[in-house]
Parts: sequence; structure tokens; C-alpha cells
Amino acid sequence: MSEIRQDITTEEWVIMAKARGKRPHDFVNRHMTTPVPAFLSSCPFCPGNEKGTPEETLAYLNKKTGRWQVRSFANRYPALSSEGSRKRIKEGELFVSMDGVGVHEVIVEGPVHNKVLALMEDEEVEAVLRAYRERYNVLIQLPFVQLVIIFKNHGASAGTSLEHPHSQLIATPLVPRYVRMQCNVATRYYDDNGSCLLTDITAEELRLAKRVVMETDKFVVFHPFASHSPFETWITPKRYEACFGNVTDDELKELSHTLRITLLKLYTGLNNPDFNYVISTVPKGDEENGYFLWHMRIIPRLTDLAGFEIGSGIHINTTLPEETASFIRELAVE
Amino acid sequence: MSEIRQDITTEEWVIMAKARGKRPHDFVNRHMTTPVPAFLSSCPFCPGNEKGTPEETLAYLNKKTGRWQVRSFANRYPALSSEGSRKRIKEGELFVSMDGVGVHEVIVEGPVHNKVLALMEDEEVEAVLRAYRERYNVLIQLPFVQLVIIFKNHGASAGTSLEHPHSQLIATPLVPRYVRMQCNVATRYYDDNGSCLLTDITAEELRLAKRVVMETDKFVVFHPFASHSPFETWITPKRYEACFGNVTDDELKELSHTLRITLLKLYTGLNNPDFNYVISTVPKGDEENGYFLWHMRIIPRLTDLAGFEIGSGIHINTTLPEETASFIRELAVE
Repeated sequence: MSEIRQDITTEEWVIMAKARGKRPHDFVNRHMTTPVPAFLSSCPFCPGNEKGTPEETLAYLNKKTGRWQVRSFANRYPALSSEGSRKRIKEGELFVSMDGVGVHEVIVEGPVHNKVLALMEDEEVEAVLRAYRERYNVLIQLPFVQLVIIFKNHGASAGTSLEHPHSQLIATPLVPRYVRMQCNVATRYYDDNGSCLLTDITAEELRLAKRVVMETDKFVVFHPFASHSPFETWITPKRYEACFGNVTDDELKELSHTLRITLLKLYTGLNNPDFNYVISTVPKGDEENGYFLWHMRIIPRLTDLAGFEIGSGIHINTTLPEETASFIRELAVE
Repeated sequence: MSEIRQDITTEEWVIMAKARGKRPHDFVNRHMTTPVPAFLSSCPFCPGNEKGTPEETLAYLNKKTGRWQVRSFANRYPALSSEGSRKRIKEGELFVSMDGVGVHEVIVEGPVHNKVLALMEDEEVEAVLRAYRERYNVLIQLPFVQLVIIFKNHGASAGTSLEHPHSQLIATPLVPRYVRMQCNVATRYYDDNGSCLLTDITAEELRLAKRVVMETDKFVVFHPFASHSPFETWITPKRYEACFGNVTDDELKELSHTLRITLLKLYTGLNNPDFNYVISTVPKGDEENGYFLWHMRIIPRLTDLAGFEIGSGIHINTTLPEETASFIRELAVE
């Protein structure tokens, strides 16, 4: 018999379909992987091609090499850009739209074409996270920005065709319904319990110790109770903080190690799967409220959404997070 | 400059990313397609292998051939099944689940392994739609069922590995949050305006005549104003009716032609793309309310969701529905 679990952060339900039960190792990527070169002259993000990218918004030097380590700039094909107005426009009697106001940037994570985060040194990952925080804190100040989403697409099925390791930031002029809903759920919990929902979830995952993958001084890594898909992974901070822009240097340093090991375990255990990750943080104005905990969500792209998910919003997950967490926890990586 | 459009049925926003602007013909499937045989002895849905499937819940005979034309039976790997209780169970202090109570059936759409709906006769499509209605009306009566979702996955990226044309029904013991939200939005509109939101949208699309693909006596086919992805297609009935189970014989007959031509245009214009469709209908108990219009949503799987969509719930669509609608409208098919 299957089990239906509630994601208490969104009130969505997930079917844990035991009849289709797949074991964690069923998800190991068996595609032929063609070796990726360390440098590609045609890659717009590789060293030597800097002039082909839009103007830099940030560049960190690598002290050892004396060259850039991390760079950011506007996306050449931006989803949103800074012109236009936030005024709503009507087409006919019913349809509402607005200009695509916002910011869309790319962060190149390093100069080496084939060196993904999982294979970097902790300090290299830290530079990427520092760039996230710096650009977050600049973009959130823009008067038309209400939310900054930092995310990464790795691999074709995760929505990127560019191999060179990179992340993206999109600053939106509105709070999307999905984020507003997560905030509403967390606010109601806060009003009812006087505590932060995700902080309490983290404590409960630590207490139950069934789905935790890794615990460090400042972070907890776990596969959530109602994982929407196999190997979904959350990284939550132990110190309460709503806004990613306020993460401390010490936290950033430890997060770089925590994130690298988490990604390396997925890379090793599942043979370099496609994945997305996203940093979840509060909308502008809610930084001082007590209801929301910033965190990271990593989603390996191991299954495809089908008609039932599209129609109902209920995800079907074929593998319990207890099993995937145990598989990842027991993997030894350096 | 991009444009951000609101899907007024869900209050979700969609970015129409003009900078990435793809033309409708950019989405034509260029994969090598290996010919699919009309019969495959190893296929569990092909004639001769009926004993290998679970017990039939429905079978329609083809009067010409004297053999079955459409069959339904329980899914061999059901997401939900009829055992268990709807009582909520707690794990620890926070986590809520319930037994996977429900029904999960397969409807085989015809005996021929490679004859997809787009290539059938109208009468053959009609038999499939009749089977949908019959099974819907049986399953919705079950005491533990609150919603019946009828859907189809075509192609690997749409979530199916089985080539033989088939649809599925899942009867759920709860109303998922996503559906509840659509109902809430439609109810608020009904309270404010005294009319059904989707009926008004249909009338407005007909009046504006920019995104309509086809109009028949009883149905309208259009690409919605805030299409989440390219070539998203809705089919709405002209007669108000909340529940798919109450569709009339005349409507079913005309829908079979409307649906076939719509699928044939996608099949021809985009070279047999992977797609999902789903029949959207009210939860049990709301059949007599005036706020919801049953309809079909067809989603060709032409793009992948990426980290931004996962984090924000905002979809990025690279092609305007006005352009895709014009492309499809002007395609001549028999």
C-alpha cells in the first residue's frame, strides 16, 4: 500500500508509490558520459572570451593565479530587464500583464570549463557563495525588486545547454504566488506556535534521525519527509535567519564545505546527475519577521513530471526519503 | 522588453521572455523517429496479451472487427489502491501522512500499437472519451474518492515508457491544494461577478480572436493568454457544466472530432511531440456550483522546467501564445 505524505511547508501532498518502489541505486545515471574538456575556445564563459560577455557586475580574483575566479554579468538573453514599469496593463476585459521589469544575471563559478562545484576546493565554492550574497544584497536594494531568486541548472534535463559551471540570479518585481503561499503557511504556523516552521522541521529531522544525511556545526542536510522526487535535499542553517543576504562569513565558509560534500555525494553516488538548486529566502520587507528560515533546496532531475502531476499538483515519488537519505549518508567521499 | 502575464485561473505569473524569443517552428521535433510497429508481441496492451493485465473494469467492442476497441483495468503498479483508511497519521510531532487510498486505472485506447489518437477515426476517439466518462462516473461514487483526474502521457519526456496508446485515471481521497486553489480563485470570481471565470475567459478569447485555434458548435480551442509553456492548448465547452461526468452524448461526439483535429495539428505541425493532457473537473460535491467549467488542457513537452521555475513557481515561456495559435490555426489537416 502506498502512503500519502503532506509537505507541511506548502500543504501539498506527495504520493509515496511503493508498488513502483525503486531502490536508490536504480537512479544511478547510466548515460554514456563524454569527457568534458577543461577549456573550450568556443565557450562564452571560458577565459579569453570575457569581451564577449556583457559588462561585469562582479569579479573576484584568485590570489594564486592572479586571474579571475568568479565573475557575474547580465544574462545575454534576460528573462527580465530594468526598463519598463510595474503598472498592470489590461488586454480586453480580463487579461492582466506588466512589463518584464527586473534583473537577470549569470555568475560564472570558476575559470575551468569542466570543474563543477562538487570537484572544487572548499575555498572555490566559498567564493561562489560570497558572490551570491554580494549580488543578492545589491539587487534587493533596487526599488522595483521584491524578491531575488538564486539558482543553478546543471545538465540538459535541468534546463541548461551551457556546460561551463554557472549559476543565475533573477530579481523579480513581484512576489510570486508560490512563494507568497509558502510565506502564508509559515506565518500561520508562527502565529499558532510562536516558532519558525522550518526551524522546527530541522529540529524534528535531527531528533528522528531517519532522513538526515549530514550535520555540521552550523547546518543540517536532510531529505524532507514529503520529498517531491527522489533524492530531494534540503540544507538548513541552525541559526535562525530569514534572509540569505544576512548570512555571516562564518556561515558562508561552513556552507561551502557542506554544499560541496552534499553535491559530491550526489555526483559520486548517482554518477553526475542533472540537478537544480535554489536558495529560498524571504521577500523584501519580511527580513525581520520570525516566520521564515532561508535554506537551499537541491532537486536531482531523475524523473519527469507527468499528466497527473500537471493536473493535480500531487507529485508521485517512487522512493522513500528514508531510503535515499541512508544511501547518501553511507557514501564515503573525501 | 519581456512581458509578465497573469494566469487569472491560478493567479500565477508567467514571464514571456522575448529576448529568448523562439519562433513556433523552432519547436518542431527533430529527433530521429524509429518507426513503431502496429503490433508488438511483448506489449502488455496488444491483442493476445489480455490475460497478462489485471481484470477488466470496462471493454467496448468494435462492431466491425468483433474484438475489443477500448479496455480499462487497474494499473499494475498503482499509485493508489482501495485498501487503507483516510485517517491522518503522525510521525513524530510534525509530519502528517495517510494511507494511499484511491484508484488507479489504465484505459487502452485501441488495439493497434502505433495508432495514436491523432491518427484514429472520430468514432474511435469517441469510444475513448466514452470510456473516460463511464469510468469517471463509477469511480466518483466510491465513498473514499473526492476527485478523479483523467490524464494522458505521450512520450518519454511526458512520463511514459509504454508506447501503446493509453490514458490513465487516478481517483484521489483528498482535494489537492493546487485544485483547491483553482476552485478558490474561481469561486471568488463567481462571487464578485456572478459568472464562471473560465466561461468568461472563453468568451473573451473568442471576442479578441488572437489566440483561438479552432471553434466548433460546442467547443473552443485556444492557447491561453498566460500559457505556461509554448503550445499549451485548452479546449473549453460552450455549454456551462462543472463536471466532466455530466458531458452529453452530443458533446462527447463533437469533442472527439475537436480533440482529434487538435492533436493531429500538433502531431503534424510539431512532428509528433511528447505531450500530456488532463481533464480538469470539479471535486465531488461541487458539481452543482456555478463557478467551475470542466475543460481539457494539453501541454506539449517542448521545454524543461529549470531552477527558477522550481524556486519561484513563475514559468518562463519563450514564445507568445498569439504566435503559436496562429501557427496551429493556419495548419491544414484533413
